[in-house]
Amino acid sequence: MTAYSAPLRDMQFVLHEVLEISKQDLPAYGDLDPEFTEAILDAAGKLASEVLAPLNAVGDRQGCRLENGVVHTPEGFAAAFDQMREGGWTALDCDPEYGGQGMPYVIGTAAGEIFTAANMAFTMYQGLTHGAYSAIHAHGSDQQKQTYLPKMVSCEWTGTMNLTEPHCGTDLGLLRTKAEPQDDGSYLITGQKIFISAGDHDMAENVIHLVLAKAPGGGEGTRGISLFIVPKFLVKQDGTLGDRNAVSVGNLEEKMGIHGNSTCVMNFDGARGWLLGDLHKGMRAMFTMMNEARLGVGLQGYAIAEHAYQNAVAYARERLQGRAVTGAENPSGPADPLIVHPDIRRNLMEQKSFLEGARALAFWGANLIDRARLGRDEQADGLVSLLTPVIKGFLTDRGFESAVQAQQVYGGHGYIEEQGMSQFVRDARITMIYEGANGVQALDLVGRKLAADGGKPIMAFFELVKQTIKSLEGDEALKSAFLDPLKAASKDLQAAGVFFMENGARNPNAALSGSYDFMRMFGHVALGLMWTRMAAAASKALSEGRGDAGFYETKLATGRYYMARELPATATHLARIQSGAEPVMALAADRF
Amino acid sequence: MTAYSAPLRDMQFVLHEVLEISKQDLPAYGDLDPEFTEAILDAAGKLASEVLAPLNAVGDRQGCRLENGVVHTPEGFAAAFDQMREGGWTALDCDPEYGGQGMPYVIGTAAGEIFTAANMAFTMYQGLTHGAYSAIHAHGSDQQKQTYLPKMVSCEWTGTMNLTEPHCGTDLGLLRTKAEPQDDGSYLITGQKIFISAGDHDMAENVIHLVLAKAPGGGEGTRGISLFIVPKFLVKQDGTLGDRNAVSVGNLEEKMGIHGNSTCVMNFDGARGWLLGDLHKGMRAMFTMMNEARLGVGLQGYAIAEHAYQNAVAYARERLQGRAVTGAENPSGPADPLIVHPDIRRNLMEQKSFLEGARALAFWGANLIDRARLGRDEQADGLVSLLTPVIKGFLTDRGFESAVQAQQVYGGHGYIEEQGMSQFVRDARITMIYEGANGVQALDLVGRKLAADGGKPIMAFFELVKQTIKSLEGDEALKSAFLDPLKAASKDLQAAGVFFMENGARNPNAALSGSYDFMRMFGHVALGLMWTRMAAAASKALSEGRGDAGFYETKLATGRYYMARELPATATHLARIQSGAEPVMALAADRF
Repeated sequence: MTAYSAPLRDMQFVLHEVLEISKQDLPAYGDLDPEFTEAILDAAGKLASEVLAPLNAVGDRQGCRLENGVVHTPEGFAAAFDQMREGGWTALDCDPEYGGQGMPYVIGTAAGEIFTAANMAFTMYQGLTHGAYSAIHAHGSDQQKQTYLPKMVSCEWTGTMNLTEPHCGTDLGLLRTKAEPQDDGSYLITGQKIFISAGDHDMAENVIHLVLAKAPGGGEGTRGISLFIVPKFLVKQDGTLGDRNAVSVGNLEEKMGIHGNSTCVMNFDGARGWLLGDLHKGMRAMFTMMNEARLGVGLQGYAIAEHAYQNAVAYARERLQGRAVTGAENPSGPADPLIVHPDIRRNLMEQKSFLEGARALAFWGANLIDRARLGRDEQADGLVSLLTPVIKGFLTDRGFESAVQAQQVYGGHGYIEEQGMSQFVRDARITMIYEGANGVQALDLVGRKLAADGGKPIMAFFELVKQTIKSLEGDEALKSAFLDPLKAASKDLQAAGVFFMENGARNPNAALSGSYDFMRMFGHVALGLMWTRMAAAASKALSEGRGDAGFYETKLATGRYYMARELPATATHLARIQSGAEPVMALAADRF
Repeated sequence: MTAYSAPLRDMQFVLHEVLEISKQDLPAYGDLDPEFTEAILDAAGKLASEVLAPLNAVGDRQGCRLENGVVHTPEGFAAAFDQMREGGWTALDCDPEYGGQGMPYVIGTAAGEIFTAANMAFTMYQGLTHGAYSAIHAHGSDQQKQTYLPKMVSCEWTGTMNLTEPHCGTDLGLLRTKAEPQDDGSYLITGQKIFISAGDHDMAENVIHLVLAKAPGGGEGTRGISLFIVPKFLVKQDGTLGDRNAVSVGNLEEKMGIHGNSTCVMNFDGARGWLLGDLHKGMRAMFTMMNEARLGVGLQGYAIAEHAYQNAVAYARERLQGRAVTGAENPSGPADPLIVHPDIRRNLMEQKSFLEGARALAFWGANLIDRARLGRDEQADGLVSLLTPVIKGFLTDRGFESAVQAQQVYGGHGYIEEQGMSQFVRDARITMIYEGANGVQALDLVGRKLAADGGKPIMAFFELVKQTIKSLEGDEALKSAFLDPLKAASKDLQAAGVFFMENGARNPNAALSGSYDFMRMFGHVALGLMWTRMAAAASKALSEGRGDAGFYETKLATGRYYMARELPATATHLARIQSGAEPVMALAADRF
């Protein structure tokens, strides 16, 4: 059995000493002083440690089961979901007009990390509801909002995203689900959707499906796609539930992980649906959900790894095996703890330095979303749009690798399911795949986001790196350990961008062959920037003699690890990118 | 369901055009002409494709079960094991004196890759038997050899390695299992062993356990350890089976993967055992098994990845999704196959270039073992001893990563158990852990093998790289694509060695903090050497106008990928190593 405890001090450090949220001039940020956020995150942490984390292994072992068309969640999930609802956790960053608490997205993100780390499969039920809530909030009619949002804010009704079909995942232009308009303004939806997370379950009265389908007259490909609201139970005029809609669970998938979440094949057999947003503009509305979902998945990537890391550390401290090469450190015991061994430390430092950098990046992304929504920052929208594929792709790739490393600390015991480390790896694996496989994120980054808005967002990012370095140049302690490596890595990233510009127009494959490496190196530079900002904050606290010096010194040492041992990867990525398309594209398809 | 077909052409290329085994002046190699090896590997391939591969998913789904103290293997395993026996596959490279076919180890390795790729959990029953066979063959008395080996060669009896106990894995000095000498020269063994692969099952008449235990008078730590033969059923004077010994299965572990192999907790309750080799010299005898097992695990790493790769390629050719960025390649279809997309190709080329390099390295290692055993090569023993942790650590790390990439090609479908791609990842994961976790391999490499025999083996390796480059310098086609990158990577590896020498004596942590990176970079240089040799062979064939030019051109293109896009990783590893111990060791244990 694994244990999880929310890293409150680290979270507070990012929120208040790095991002300085309570000093930001945003209306919704007014209440966010350190005492307030600590109270919220502490309460979230208690629920996570005491209720959700103990159910993590239960969910994995029991999974969901489909009986007579009804999906049953694992024991204890429904009661825990009630606790989430009753504690108001599902409403945290939702609109007060529909029963939400109106907190900023950055707080929803911080609490989301905690719940996800404790039990990702469980937290997905609420996460998907939040995505559907956002889409309806952004694109729904007033009546739709009044009908659905209050119940979704409270998670009395949950939500889903229905995109994928058996023959089409990324390429949604191929989809076949049909929407036939009816005289009363509704549509009849017919088709099969697969991989529908939280598609059905026994924890809510109703499930509100958002379904992509083709209505007549929309033309070929993605242009013909519209988005529909298809409730499991039809909603009567008075808001109570009416007839069962013609949507049913065809099957539950048996998956590598996230067994506690019901992944459904959904059959729509002339189910009644209502258009959400504009006809034939379904992709736009869906992207509201999808962008949020992508940031959420990036968060899942490192949140699972945080839970895994905490247990790897505990194991490395307790398990006695071998002696330190520099002399026994536990001479009265039969052996020293694993943590004395340099390669165990390398392993743990890789995890730790990634996790703390990832958290800073995810929180910064959430802060940028708040800044964009609240209209206080012209660059924020472009920047977070640029960073979204990096946060999704890099944090899930590295989160999975980090979970694998945590499992490795356990040796053979890590391979035994009872220990719980295997589950982290199996659960984390999906984050690299869903909401756009990471290769698709890389394509989005290089093929779309780099050139977006005439390249303004990427220029803004480099400018931010430059300004950060410039503003800290006086600090000799930071220079060689942080500023120089960041400068070098950022230069590599720019060189890759230049390579794409010089070669991509003539041969798009020259850019796309390097897209994955570019995403990875961008991730490193982004974490390098985060570490530089964290180091500056820690250094400031130390020079002012504030707080626990050990905490800030640890922060600096962890950052030095990242800069010295992770950032050099950009050189290799650049070399790979500069080798161009030839090595990648040389073979005929039948020669693989 | 996945499919597997043995890569016979690639194997023949390595055996005959790169290693040129039939031209090597080794007595046992006399028969190994291309027709002969092809006939053997073709037959192995048929058995693998038709019998073992279809059982791979069955084994995963059913697993083993323990009922009334008896382990039952999955349906079909016993019949397949009979086919392995009847075909003589278990006897391939065993000593003819005990019923073996007397073939060289390199042929056992090639056939082993095929069987392992098709069904690793199944093939382990035979693999462990072979390891125990080798230990008895090397250290047993004549009587022990006569008693056990013929039955183990035929796998009528199978074997196990009993090392690990609940509180000790790597640190065998802590082990508690006791051996009490009896008047008749036997010992009574008492203790508990865990993680015993193939510990019990229903496919053989007897199981011969090799058990590490402490006999009186041996002193502390590993010096006091001896190795014992402990059969499940005692063997009577006439060779028939007698009483059941006091060894039993305490439990079957529930694991992340290799469900088809029985991983047992073994309880020895005064079980009768016989000393194998010298008293208190058990570690030495065990290492005979362990070194062989480590090479075997390295082979598992890439063999599983080969099976996964073949299916990823098939999926990438069939699955229609999106359009090539340079224009439709399947204009009459609804979309192009995945394989047109540059990032899918990058993914597949990474797998392919690793797999073919890995095979060459594993076969070369096996060839070195043959050369060392047959006494024709003074350097061979030191070289294969140096390469063993690299083969184990690097090929399993990369094999796992490769299986993850193969799964990624499938997108969401890869996460569904039914597709079979998850199993490859779950199965491959153990190869990084057992037979010495990869961190322990890195420690062995840097802490022991580098300095072994006054550094002669590592010098021999660098000399080999140098001579290979020198011998090919006239070939302009190879120079920039192969020789220059190999030279640069080898220089990085040497620089890392110099860093260890200059800093390691004063501070061992400075070397050990870089051990993992050193293992990885050594792996890259070794594969770079293999690719250079393969490129030279392909280039020679092309210039002589021999065979299928497309095959050789593909080989060159795949090698160029490895050299251009994988070898640059050595620069990053070197930078990490040169950052020394400080970033790794900076934190106090309670600051993680």
